[in-house]
Amino acid sequence: MGSTGAEDAAAPSRRGRGEGRGAAARRAMRSGGGPGASSPYIQRRIREYEVLDEEGLALIESNADIVLDEVGIEFRDDAEALALWKDAGCDIRGERVHFPKGLCRELLKTAPATFTQHARNGARSVQIGGKATVFAPVYGPPFVRDLEGVRRYATIEDFRNFVKLAYMAPSLHHSGGTVCEPVDIPVNKRHLDMVYSHIRYSDKPFMGSVTAPERAEDTVEMCKILFGADFVDQNCVVINLINANSPMVFDETMLGAAKVYARNNQATVISPFILAGAMSPVTVAGTLTQVLAEVLAGAAFTQLIRPGAPVVFGTFAASISMQSGAPTFGTPEPSLVSYGAAQLARRLNLPFRTGGSLCGSKVADAQAAHESANTLNTTLLAGTNFVLHAAGWLEGGLVSSYEKFMIDIDQLGMMQRMAEGVDLSESGQAMDAIREVGPGSHYLGCAHTQANFQTAFYRSNLADNNSYEQWLAEGEKRIETRANALCRSWLQNYQAPELDAGIDEALLAFVRQRKESMPDAFT
Amino acid sequence: MGSTGAEDAAAPSRRGRGEGRGAAARRAMRSGGGPGASSPYIQRRIREYEVLDEEGLALIESNADIVLDEVGIEFRDDAEALALWKDAGCDIRGERVHFPKGLCRELLKTAPATFTQHARNGARSVQIGGKATVFAPVYGPPFVRDLEGVRRYATIEDFRNFVKLAYMAPSLHHSGGTVCEPVDIPVNKRHLDMVYSHIRYSDKPFMGSVTAPERAEDTVEMCKILFGADFVDQNCVVINLINANSPMVFDETMLGAAKVYARNNQATVISPFILAGAMSPVTVAGTLTQVLAEVLAGAAFTQLIRPGAPVVFGTFAASISMQSGAPTFGTPEPSLVSYGAAQLARRLNLPFRTGGSLCGSKVADAQAAHESANTLNTTLLAGTNFVLHAAGWLEGGLVSSYEKFMIDIDQLGMMQRMAEGVDLSESGQAMDAIREVGPGSHYLGCAHTQANFQTAFYRSNLADNNSYEQWLAEGEKRIETRANALCRSWLQNYQAPELDAGIDEALLAFVRQRKESMPDAFT
Repeated sequence: MGSTGAEDAAAPSRRGRGEGRGAAARRAMRSGGGPGASSPYIQRRIREYEVLDEEGLALIESNADIVLDEVGIEFRDDAEALALWKDAGCDIRGERVHFPKGLCRELLKTAPATFTQHARNGARSVQIGGKATVFAPVYGPPFVRDLEGVRRYATIEDFRNFVKLAYMAPSLHHSGGTVCEPVDIPVNKRHLDMVYSHIRYSDKPFMGSVTAPERAEDTVEMCKILFGADFVDQNCVVINLINANSPMVFDETMLGAAKVYARNNQATVISPFILAGAMSPVTVAGTLTQVLAEVLAGAAFTQLIRPGAPVVFGTFAASISMQSGAPTFGTPEPSLVSYGAAQLARRLNLPFRTGGSLCGSKVADAQAAHESANTLNTTLLAGTNFVLHAAGWLEGGLVSSYEKFMIDIDQLGMMQRMAEGVDLSESGQAMDAIREVGPGSHYLGCAHTQANFQTAFYRSNLADNNSYEQWLAEGEKRIETRANALCRSWLQNYQAPELDAGIDEALLAFVRQRKESMPDAFT
Repeated sequence: MGSTGAEDAAAPSRRGRGEGRGAAARRAMRSGGGPGASSPYIQRRIREYEVLDEEGLALIESNADIVLDEVGIEFRDDAEALALWKDAGCDIRGERVHFPKGLCRELLKTAPATFTQHARNGARSVQIGGKATVFAPVYGPPFVRDLEGVRRYATIEDFRNFVKLAYMAPSLHHSGGTVCEPVDIPVNKRHLDMVYSHIRYSDKPFMGSVTAPERAEDTVEMCKILFGADFVDQNCVVINLINANSPMVFDETMLGAAKVYARNNQATVISPFILAGAMSPVTVAGTLTQVLAEVLAGAAFTQLIRPGAPVVFGTFAASISMQSGAPTFGTPEPSLVSYGAAQLARRLNLPFRTGGSLCGSKVADAQAAHESANTLNTTLLAGTNFVLHAAGWLEGGLVSSYEKFMIDIDQLGMMQRMAEGVDLSESGQAMDAIREVGPGSHYLGCAHTQANFQTAFYRSNLADNNSYEQWLAEGEKRIETRANALCRSWLQNYQAPELDAGIDEALLAFVRQRKESMPDAFT
């Protein structure tokens, strides 16, 4: 049923004990002051922000029940799914499933409110749900904007680089999934290289392939090599993004992947992918209603497959420009959707995923930052548990940007500090300092400041706060320029976490054998 | 005691009725699609975010009482102030005032919880307090970054430009005060040109001079010419920024200006100016304690001068880098201070001022935007009533930036939309749309979308969301470049609001006469 405590999440996995957090921290120290030791995940001490009251929530829940009953949800090209729903008591018309009121909620009672996703380094295992927040990098872009400033198709080299950067970033708790699409590798094989890269170049938890059921099977097989088959059957070691084809459709591919992972007791994130105005109504309440209906159906489906399999309430919320049809990010309406969806998820007792550092800008300029910051502040205050796209997302998700990645992880560090809330201890109250300093003096040298200044304030490694004259003398650098230099230095200083040689060989052999069995043996 | 309703705030002032909101809207339409009609102010329908619980709030209040009693607050070079405090029952030691527990809170019972600041165009009068939020531009920079990209000293021409831009900006509700320092005018005279510019080039409410008591008197005199002496005595027509010299000092200049305004029933914003770590302890709770003590003393002082005079609980919160000593903005600690101070202000039943679009960056890059967005999101969700520095602030407040001004006002528009919250009307619920569209289709052409798309989503006039190819073809413009062009177009299309010729002449005569009476007659 999943664990609820931080202690559980930090428990070491069956293998990979050699790389504890202390070792990572020491290595980070050696690597030259850039990357540092990760906190395993954020434990929020601040409350959630809410935009709906009880009446509004009940109204949307009631409307979602009407949608599930009257309109129904399509489960396409999947006879097994339709049979399961029929057995569960649904009315099936063609591929459309109509749900009796309350059925999905009843089924979801077996889903864990929180669970642990184990990493091969047990100190980096994460809790998903409750007061925990886990930041993962960008997911999905076919392009990168590289360190030469060139926008081009992504390669497996880029993929490895982003895995390495996420490994080194103290504010990222997760290695993510498709950090970019390695389009230099055939589409039927690249999932093997992606999963291997996450395992080889990082020891943080990661995501699996969902682009075909057999690729999901490959992911699970590789997890079994890493963690052992019994461990995998009883524990979550991989989390997987299952998008609904909004409005109100789950297709064969997504259902196939979801079934593989649920059957293997691995986590799915059931995420309506919403560009409001196109895939959902142009209103926040209408979008929330549809999102809730889709998640109820998709998440309950995982419990039909295997009761107790971990499942996350996902929401990807953006709007479209009603003038150009282009997606827009960081605007108020998606923020309202995220806040509302988080409330609905909590009432369902499910972990919640939304947001990240989303933007539509083509470059890491002020537009990118405003849109990302609006989304990210919402993501944190909504009480989001699992945050994809937290670093590196550019151009509406078409591009993984190295520079923006570095800028974003600095902001994630700020969110982590924000989540700690106000320290009301005796030291936090600082009454001794106020008494010592008194009117008209300053606090720079007082005992309390001396004792606390190292940890008092969040310390950005990219923001320039020097004098104008010094900034001029240093070449009038914009933050992207500083981010570029920092990124190069991190990649130069990267050191791979140790991986048991026997496991590495077994993984490579599996990848080789699977590739050889496939029609195109190009790589 | 001030008014509490939106109706009151929108009531026309004694003069300037000729320029109603309808006329402004029509003129904005004519001016070419850029500037638009202002909402008079934001009426938040969303709740406030809170970082402290009852226990934490009570602890900080109790600590502030201890500071007021044991440590005391200095009122410097002002015998009248000390005499007033003595009569009120305080213990005076030198210039330090020690307050009996509860005295300041008792005195503050006469301060209004909300009040109206009247504009010469009654449709632009604003409510300060309660669920209202008023955005005002940057205050104080001696430099500008101009439309040629040059950083230089500000002039009266720049000052007029920022007043014009704020007048045209739909998301700014206020003309502000020292939108930049016109350093080409002698320091003893420039307040006259500043106040005149606000009156002449805008019809939104504005701020007065606080740099010397006689300049505050000049401000009040000019307000009397504009609104009539009786009206000024009974209504707030100007709001004024009174900074505490933190820690725990009010100086002669600030006290002098505060006395002039309070005596004339005009509003003061009592604002500790805090760079935490220098002017306050390095902790959030310690800073909040000192802020509360300073505001209690300063705000209560206005009630000693004239019970009922409007006064705002102000907090300017930033931190300093403990490495370089430079101020930093948009970091988590100032956000926590702002949220906490807003809670303390609500418990005192006083309107609250904090935040804005603060940043330390030298240019309007991603650093500037992240820092501004972090501050601004906090400002809105804290429930801030009066927001200085909402547009144009750059480089820690040393620079007023034209480009950033345009970028910021777009973000302010988003905050306004965010503040409306979730529409739960029948149209908001959009059940007809969901039923009409059904699974697997899209909402672009459905009746509900057609009926609502014009107003459904916030529409940025600066964000680029077009395709990459189109962006390339249009010259790979960053947002600053687009902001620059938009700013030039607004300034070209500016049309002054009408001002009664007799009032204008009287104002100019007053300015001339006052300048002639001063030692340096250079301008």
